[in-house]
Amino acid sequence: MSINSFGHLFRVTTWGESHGPALGATVDGCPPGVPVSAEDLQVWLDRRKPGQNKYTTQRREPDAVEVLSGVFEGVSTGTPIQLMIRNTDQRSKDYGDIAEKFRPGHADITYWQKYGVRDYRGGGRSSARETAARVAAGGVARAALDSLVPGIKITGYMTQMGPHGIDRARFDWAQIEQNPFWTPDAQAAEDWAGYLDALRKSGSSVGAVIEVAARGVPAGLGAPVYGKLDTDLAAAMMSINAVKGVEIGEGMAAAALTGEANADEISMGPDGPVYSSNHAGGILGGISTGQDVVVRFAVKPTSSILTTRKTISKSGEDTEIITKGRHDPCVGIRAVPVGEAMMACVLLDHLLLHRGQVGDGPRGNIG
Amino acid sequence: MSINSFGHLFRVTTWGESHGPALGATVDGCPPGVPVSAEDLQVWLDRRKPGQNKYTTQRREPDAVEVLSGVFEGVSTGTPIQLMIRNTDQRSKDYGDIAEKFRPGHADITYWQKYGVRDYRGGGRSSARETAARVAAGGVARAALDSLVPGIKITGYMTQMGPHGIDRARFDWAQIEQNPFWTPDAQAAEDWAGYLDALRKSGSSVGAVIEVAARGVPAGLGAPVYGKLDTDLAAAMMSINAVKGVEIGEGMAAAALTGEANADEISMGPDGPVYSSNHAGGILGGISTGQDVVVRFAVKPTSSILTTRKTISKSGEDTEIITKGRHDPCVGIRAVPVGEAMMACVLLDHLLLHRGQVGDGPRGNIG
Amino acid sequence: MSINSFGHLFRVTTWGESHGPALGATVDGCPPGVPVSAEDLQVWLDRRKPGQNKYTTQRREPDAVEVLSGVFEGVSTGTPIQLMIRNTDQRSKDYGDIAEKFRPGHADITYWQKYGVRDYRGGGRSSARETAARVAAGGVARAALDSLVPGIKITGYMTQMGPHGIDRARFDWAQIEQNPFWTPDAQAAEDWAGYLDALRKSGSSVGAVIEVAARGVPAGLGAPVYGKLDTDLAAAMMSINAVKGVEIGEGMAAAALTGEANADEISMGPDGPVYSSNHAGGILGGISTGQDVVVRFAVKPTSSILTTRKTISKSGEDTEIITKGRHDPCVGIRAVPVGEAMMACVLLDHLLLHRGQVGDGPRGNIG
Amino acid sequence: MSINSFGHLFRVTTWGESHGPALGATVDGCPPGVPVSAEDLQVWLDRRKPGQNKYTTQRREPDAVEVLSGVFEGVSTGTPIQLMIRNTDQRSKDYGDIAEKFRPGHADITYWQKYGVRDYRGGGRSSARETAARVAAGGVARAALDSLVPGIKITGYMTQMGPHGIDRARFDWAQIEQNPFWTPDAQAAEDWAGYLDALRKSGSSVGAVIEVAARGVPAGLGAPVYGKLDTDLAAAMMSINAVKGVEIGEGMAAAALTGEANADEISMGPDGPVYSSNHAGGILGGISTGQDVVVRFAVKPTSSILTTRKTISKSGEDTEIITKGRHDPCVGIRAVPVGEAMMACVLLDHLLLHRGQVGDGPRGNIG
Repeated sequence: MSINSFGHLFRVTTWGESHGPALGATVDGCPPGVPVSAEDLQVWLDRRKPGQNKYTTQRREPDAVEVLSGVFEGVSTGTPIQLMIRNTDQRSKDYGDIAEKFRPGHADITYWQKYGVRDYRGGGRSSARETAARVAAGGVARAALDSLVPGIKITGYMTQMGPHGIDRARFDWAQIEQNPFWTPDAQAAEDWAGYLDALRKSGSSVGAVIEVAARGVPAGLGAPVYGKLDTDLAAAMMSINAVKGVEIGEGMAAAALTGEANADEISMGPDGPVYSSNHAGGILGGISTGQDVVVRFAVKPTSSILTTRKTISKSGEDTEIITKGRHDPCVGIRAVPVGEAMMACVLLDHLLLHRGQVGDGPRGNIG
Repeated sequence: MSINSFGHLFRVTTWGESHGPALGATVDGCPPGVPVSAEDLQVWLDRRKPGQNKYTTQRREPDAVEVLSGVFEGVSTGTPIQLMIRNTDQRSKDYGDIAEKFRPGHADITYWQKYGVRDYRGGGRSSARETAARVAAGGVARAALDSLVPGIKITGYMTQMGPHGIDRARFDWAQIEQNPFWTPDAQAAEDWAGYLDALRKSGSSVGAVIEVAARGVPAGLGAPVYGKLDTDLAAAMMSINAVKGVEIGEGMAAAALTGEANADEISMGPDGPVYSSNHAGGILGGISTGQDVVVRFAVKPTSSILTTRKTISKSGEDTEIITKGRHDPCVGIRAVPVGEAMMACVLLDHLLLHRGQVGDGPRGNIG
Repeated sequence: MSINSFGHLFRVTTWGESHGPALGATVDGCPPGVPVSAEDLQVWLDRRKPGQNKYTTQRREPDAVEVLSGVFEGVSTGTPIQLMIRNTDQRSKDYGDIAEKFRPGHADITYWQKYGVRDYRGGGRSSARETAARVAAGGVARAALDSLVPGIKITGYMTQMGPHGIDRARFDWAQIEQNPFWTPDAQAAEDWAGYLDALRKSGSSVGAVIEVAARGVPAGLGAPVYGKLDTDLAAAMMSINAVKGVEIGEGMAAAALTGEANADEISMGPDGPVYSSNHAGGILGGISTGQDVVVRFAVKPTSSILTTRKTISKSGEDTEIITKGRHDPCVGIRAVPVGEAMMACVLLDHLLLHRGQVGDGPRGNIG
Repeated sequence: MSINSFGHLFRVTTWGESHGPALGATVDGCPPGVPVSAEDLQVWLDRRKPGQNKYTTQRREPDAVEVLSGVFEGVSTGTPIQLMIRNTDQRSKDYGDIAEKFRPGHADITYWQKYGVRDYRGGGRSSARETAARVAAGGVARAALDSLVPGIKITGYMTQMGPHGIDRARFDWAQIEQNPFWTPDAQAAEDWAGYLDALRKSGSSVGAVIEVAARGVPAGLGAPVYGKLDTDLAAAMMSINAVKGVEIGEGMAAAALTGEANADEISMGPDGPVYSSNHAGGILGGISTGQDVVVRFAVKPTSSILTTRKTISKSGEDTEIITKGRHDPCVGIRAVPVGEAMMACVLLDHLLLHRGQVGDGPRGNIG
């Protein structure tokens, strides 16, 4: 019911604003005995950290995570794990302009209209900084998944930057860690570098599409109707700020297919059912098939650009605004580890839900 | 949070299988004093009812809804409203084939793997019949919205059938009720009629894209992060069976835009803020702006087709299957009223949530 | 979390009014493969059924339960189980008096003040008839517990009627089914018979204390803080209408004890820890110890009595009221199977929660 | 669903162990615009703080609360409020004995059995220190209630220490703040002082009964069945560690009353309904009547006593244990502000729930 929480049994509540003293995640429902440490979580946070190359915001935050509870002698105790990240790079500056004017494409105006009060410093709660807490929580989820489903592998990557998509024929898992865009297409990485550099210099921004694939997911996770794995993945990804579209498997393109083209045929393999294709994105009727679970989401371009835009002030006067400061030309880059974290949280949550209702492992055998 | 429930304060739990005695919705949290009657709800159910024209399944169900509780002397009492629809057209037939074999693209195999038991008659819980219960519940939500936000208007329509999209230049709200596809483009309706007829005769099927727009939504509904209006709309639409993609406003296309192109500029109108465009789909930072709230979803083609497909049996043998029987060549048509119902449920839920936390109306004034 | 639902993973939503067409329970989260049938559930309902002897209301309802969904070929499928009970004994009568006046000690006045509308026929939602739905749902919980924890045994019994308590020295499990009061003290049963008969003839009513014991509960169920087994048992019992007090183990009497007297000493038995006593009621830190789980609750006397009482009318005038009709002189009698049902629901829910977070069985071994 | 959270719309999740770096509360759903500051919250924490007199544990913790998020320029923003309290008095000592042996009456053994790992230092999550986080969260709830329902007043007080109850004839609200036991009976305070001093010197402990009354609660809060105000109050109080019984109004004593004695008669006063008595504890059918809401709970004696007790070790051997260290002879004293905090959280939550479903204020007028 809570509006800042996510998950059924593995339940994450994030808190904190961009320019407050700290932000973090309260992680409830982690299985006991999972190895958790600040060092291990830091690895994931470092992937999302700003200021790592010229393509991301130059805000410099160490994003050092502290584990305040729920871990004893190196393992989770089954009680709430509190993860805190101090905000350190809160430059004292004059916020007058954004305190009085609403930035187009930002949450400024709606927060104001809804609440009648808003923390205008850096976007407050609607800032992309909120996603640091998700990545920390996702690190806990990954550790638990590693314990419970050895071999599960969650990988995010960029498949489109602005209008430029990757060529699936060049898809290479090994490339993903080799370029600043986390793209599996080496050629695209090269092309995008120049494209984004020009965009950055012009003070503009652009959107992106991120895909997250989970390999090694057992069959049977998810549940019918409102607990469909697709439902929770859609909610998880759409809850990331700036995301405006989510697709499972074939996604929006499924609309154009015939039943013959879309349905993945089944045959019997040595270890169980084998599918001729994966239009379904690894999910049928809301439940995992054992194929790769594939979700994709679009991140809109950040509205913080150097071009003057028309807007209004709190007092209702027409005016203009330019958003100066340190911003990501393609905020989608840093959304890759965030998408991975959300996938990890959803899968762990459904693993625990399945174990709760049905017990360990799938229940119906084939063959 | 429950896996067959949806919503925070206005909470709908659907129940029932395609070929069981009945199905329905338990609706909790409806405000008191809302006019509710079986007759009024029937209007919405009749829009979704199968067998209305040659483009939808020939299964003939009256889908008559009964109101079993929560209504007294014509109005809601604030206690749970139970809506029941009897299944009447359960032809007794030999289910042997689908009892033993898994239909490709269906939930048959995953339900079996997960639960070790499944109601194979007509898809059981994964049947599109489940959506009748949503439409009934959506009728209650619409009635409550009409009481609380006079003038709110929720309209669904088809914008793409198979590979054929509408021409937005021909968009006409008045056309939507004039053709069997609920499309605002009269020319598309004509073209699709021939296309779908041929497809139907060939025993094939095709996907579709549905858009649902809500006009007259007040600013301030929704909440940050996991309670974003976009998050709950994405979950609502993705929970409809056969849906594989969801978009808010610009959706996946937002990835290709620059910040200049995507952000809707703001100016002051006589009644408050006015936007130069609606790329955001009426939602900023998860909170409604007062513009039209626009969501779009893709429905995959039904996998019940007359072409022989490769599959396996419960005993693990490779085999083939043809799905005979009465099926929708484009199940997306009947998804239109379902999408409307989900929009109504989400908006009412967020209206109540907002009223709970903040009180009546938005809190921050402009001007 | 919904206001008409109970439970985390095994989640029961009851619906329906005393004099509407039907009432029932939507049961979500039942494990698959559990034997469920209307016949088996009817056994539990018959224990609660009114009109069985002169000590309970003479309203005659068969309380026949129908299973509308979630069961296929005799076992649960893991999808929602809808249990419906038709109301059949809705005498058409003049409700004028209770429609206009508020009965003291009843929910009439608060429902009216809160909602501005109420189903005054027989108390509507606040009627004890609501508990029939709980008993039906509890029957499903019992069946699931029998599958998952063979040997578990849940027994309710009356320990006090009006001012007359049982003598614990005469406690005999075998007596419980032998008298109309479900009391383990045969002498008390005899004494109470005369006491209650006189009370009934005078048109008065009296309260009672019910105890419910669960034997064979494994150690490790429950969770810290807000998920304490005591917390959920307290909520479960307090949610039964007319209940005004709940105790775990020593209960309110724990206040008078010293630490020496209250703490149960531990020694090692052949099958694990053995306790010298059970002041804790089988729960330490919110988690079951393996001892009997013991909860006790007080049911207030029904306010429907033949004595004239002062009250007010809807129009705000001082007036008087007598509640004629068929009522229970000691409604606590019929609360016994209700308490058992709630205990079954709570234990199953926590069994599933434990299995979800921790896996099957307890995790820490002793010895 | 979460096991460390409490509340529907105003939702508190506590986290942290007795001897970890910190503990706190994540408070979600607070209305915007409520004045919140560390200074104001500290006032409530100081009431619960240990070491204030010889009757409470000599552990010395400043219990200084930090507000890490959700507050901007002195008022709540409507986003999550993170309240953190550093643990400062974690004496480094040899925990060997309690690491290997289970203290009778403590959660040591059940945490171990459930999770297979436990933070044995000071009881970890099951420590009374967890209640500091509740008091902080309750401070936020009180501030919100003050904004929304001016005049509401929540007061806790001790009505029984060990076997010694107060004399209701001497009840004086003004006395409550005048003695270290928060009792309204000055004579009892005097008697208890000697009694508890002797008990403390002997290294023993004793239980207590706390009553919490809320005056000025509007009619109409609460909801039927599982959302009854009594249900949530019972859960709230029972979730406090060491609590074993909860009563609303007449409580367990209601069992001994007749319908004539128990039902509060109603007459019309100048400002609405007036009741002849308050056996109901201000709640009918789960909904507040406008009378004082009265809840009472029993706190068991702490099991940390200086007497040797029989127990077992992790390796399953019979042994003995004495709990040395700094402990409360009557932990019930410090439970008074905790009970107040829980009452504040429940009332605010139901105020928001009511406003969400029904709108501001009650809906049905009388007269």
